[in-house]
Amino acid sequence: MTIESTVGEMAKAAKAASMKIARCAAEKKNDVLLKIADKIDKGASYIQEENKKDLVRAREMGISNAMIDRLTVNDSTINSMADGLRDVALLDDPVGSITRTWQRPNGLQVSRMRIPLGVIGIIYESRPNVTIDAAGLCLKAGNAVILRGGSEALHSNQALAGIIASALEETGLAKETVQVVPIRDRLAVNALLSQEEYIDLIIPRGGEGLIRFVVENSKIPVLKHYKGVCHVYVDKGADFKMAQEICLNSKAQRPGVCNAMETMLVHKSVADEFLPYMEKIFNQARVEIRGCPETCRILPDATKAKEEDWPAEYLDLIVAVKVVEDMDQAVIHIDKYGSNHTEVIVTSDYNRARRFIREVDSSVVLVNASTRFNDGGQLGLGAEIGISTSKLHAFGPMGVEELTTTKFTVLGDGQIRQ
Amino acid sequence: MTIESTVGEMAKAAKAASMKIARCAAEKKNDVLLKIADKIDKGASYIQEENKKDLVRAREMGISNAMIDRLTVNDSTINSMADGLRDVALLDDPVGSITRTWQRPNGLQVSRMRIPLGVIGIIYESRPNVTIDAAGLCLKAGNAVILRGGSEALHSNQALAGIIASALEETGLAKETVQVVPIRDRLAVNALLSQEEYIDLIIPRGGEGLIRFVVENSKIPVLKHYKGVCHVYVDKGADFKMAQEICLNSKAQRPGVCNAMETMLVHKSVADEFLPYMEKIFNQARVEIRGCPETCRILPDATKAKEEDWPAEYLDLIVAVKVVEDMDQAVIHIDKYGSNHTEVIVTSDYNRARRFIREVDSSVVLVNASTRFNDGGQLGLGAEIGISTSKLHAFGPMGVEELTTTKFTVLGDGQIRQ
Repeated sequence: MTIESTVGEMAKAAKAASMKIARCAAEKKNDVLLKIADKIDKGASYIQEENKKDLVRAREMGISNAMIDRLTVNDSTINSMADGLRDVALLDDPVGSITRTWQRPNGLQVSRMRIPLGVIGIIYESRPNVTIDAAGLCLKAGNAVILRGGSEALHSNQALAGIIASALEETGLAKETVQVVPIRDRLAVNALLSQEEYIDLIIPRGGEGLIRFVVENSKIPVLKHYKGVCHVYVDKGADFKMAQEICLNSKAQRPGVCNAMETMLVHKSVADEFLPYMEKIFNQARVEIRGCPETCRILPDATKAKEEDWPAEYLDLIVAVKVVEDMDQAVIHIDKYGSNHTEVIVTSDYNRARRFIREVDSSVVLVNASTRFNDGGQLGLGAEIGISTSKLHAFGPMGVEELTTTKFTVLGDGQIRQ
Repeated sequence: MTIESTVGEMAKAAKAASMKIARCAAEKKNDVLLKIADKIDKGASYIQEENKKDLVRAREMGISNAMIDRLTVNDSTINSMADGLRDVALLDDPVGSITRTWQRPNGLQVSRMRIPLGVIGIIYESRPNVTIDAAGLCLKAGNAVILRGGSEALHSNQALAGIIASALEETGLAKETVQVVPIRDRLAVNALLSQEEYIDLIIPRGGEGLIRFVVENSKIPVLKHYKGVCHVYVDKGADFKMAQEICLNSKAQRPGVCNAMETMLVHKSVADEFLPYMEKIFNQARVEIRGCPETCRILPDATKAKEEDWPAEYLDLIVAVKVVEDMDQAVIHIDKYGSNHTEVIVTSDYNRARRFIREVDSSVVLVNASTRFNDGGQLGLGAEIGISTSKLHAFGPMGVEELTTTKFTVLGDGQIRQ
């Protein structure tokens, strides 16, 4: 069979399976999730053996240490995969829940009921735990899923797929509900992205290169974010201690992730006082400052920022700093250079807090809290399948609910249209 | 300027305007809507003169009477455009409304706030009233909009665009908030569909050919339905009088629209009694019956249905009729031939009513009511920009709310991540 026909058959089978899992009771879906978790615990040594095959091959191919790190399944990965599934089983089942009900003058009772999306394709890199995390969330939301992990993780992903399939079959569900594409060739990704007849949504997880490739080649709608250029604006009259803690946490608690701060904007009336103190704290945390001319006047040791620093996603211990005239200029800067991801105002002014929230066009807008809270778990969604920075369907962290849609249900007593 | 660069400039200007209209107060948006309505009333004779130019040209080109009919702006079209805008002004403003709020253990108050989508492109055929209806709904939801009507309606649409632009400017809003593409050439549609940098959503309105063209050529997400193959299932034990009224209304009240019934499914245990009576009623309404073998056995005058009748959208006084073993077979038939649009069960059985609602995968599922209620106005959405039969973002009739999305807003007191 060609790659196209193999992937086509998988997609067709997924569609058929999706109609069954969509109608599956919550209890049964939770049974599957808990069964997979138990099998992961019991199959730990088998999973790690299969993972070793991937690691040996990856080392032979000279893959970077960072990637080897992400590829490795250790005891803690095993535990977090199993526990993650148990957490997802505890979440409320979104399917069948009524989000709203109203009555029409003619007596019709109209409701909106949550239903699954159908078939979801997940395209991701190295980390084998995504196989379990994504499968768990898709199953919980009543969707079938096709997973295409990195070719370097194929043994690990197939071991996990086998465990999921046996749990599905033991529970009386079709094993095609969760499938891993068993093909290393990148053409398998193209083949997957062409199954618009069977696949309803693609979610890519990985670096900007992977995501752009998926968007450019997909005939299926894609939910994604390219990058997070997140801002913290320190307002006139902000509590300095709070501002410093929030800026440090936003930048340095985990600099390599999309919800880390990349640019700090400071109101000119507090810059002279705030920046020197903040510089000390950034220095202690080994954060390099790249400043606008005004910042560099106040902080002579700062590097001069170039134009390309303002839209940069450093993912590193570097921060761009700009002194702004007022909040409006901060918002204009964010409009121009931001990525609609996460923005923070640190303020004690009620009106500007309200105005910042309304006017900033980002998936998560925070007052007096760290950018690092843009995360499904942190915001209370239970778990997260990714973050969307485009507005259609979902904007911001996506949990189980974002893997569903609603249909209208109408209860009548013989109503007809006049 | 080339077509590409003209459309590109329009899209860029729309994006800039969208950021202003997104932040515009509800009162001001309603002022614009009411002002456009008044200007339509006052400009009626001017609009109709411009419309006559289109009609003269259309007749010269030998366009069909049905199309001439749709193209004509008469006094009643004028009134319905103006009144429609006044109705939309009375709707609740979705922008800024909080759909949910919850508290995190660390004290963060998380909310989801409705915000506009951005820039919406509407691609449609002949009817000039769509220019006003679509512009009104997009404005209400805080979006900028680019309208590309049929080339045959260009004079009418430009007259309406001029009225909208003057109302926008008098209210202090950018005239680029609503733009009509002033180009007859169909390449303008292709140019519009390539502006993925500036346009967030495309909604095509028209026949299946137009919609397929848009989907195949768009780099921007498209919300649409291709067709409505709607079913009514008459269950064992259904109230016959109710079933007959619902089937007649679903089929014949307005056969040329997407929410008309195309196939009637009848439980075998009631077919012998129900079908002959229903046949009389269909005969009176001049509805032709195309039946399965069992239907033709009971109704010897019925035409024999062919395989292509089951997925057919007749949009005419024709109905396909099939006798089924039970509700499960009805659902299987709908899964196979339906278009995820509108399905009805007529029943007096509680369990099957509940099961039909859960199991049928359509945007609107009704119990004991006509298919004709799948309509934004009828279901209480206030007005409708179209119907979506794909699940991402919106499924079913789309009102003002479906022209928005939500962002997360987070109120803190200095929270940082541990």
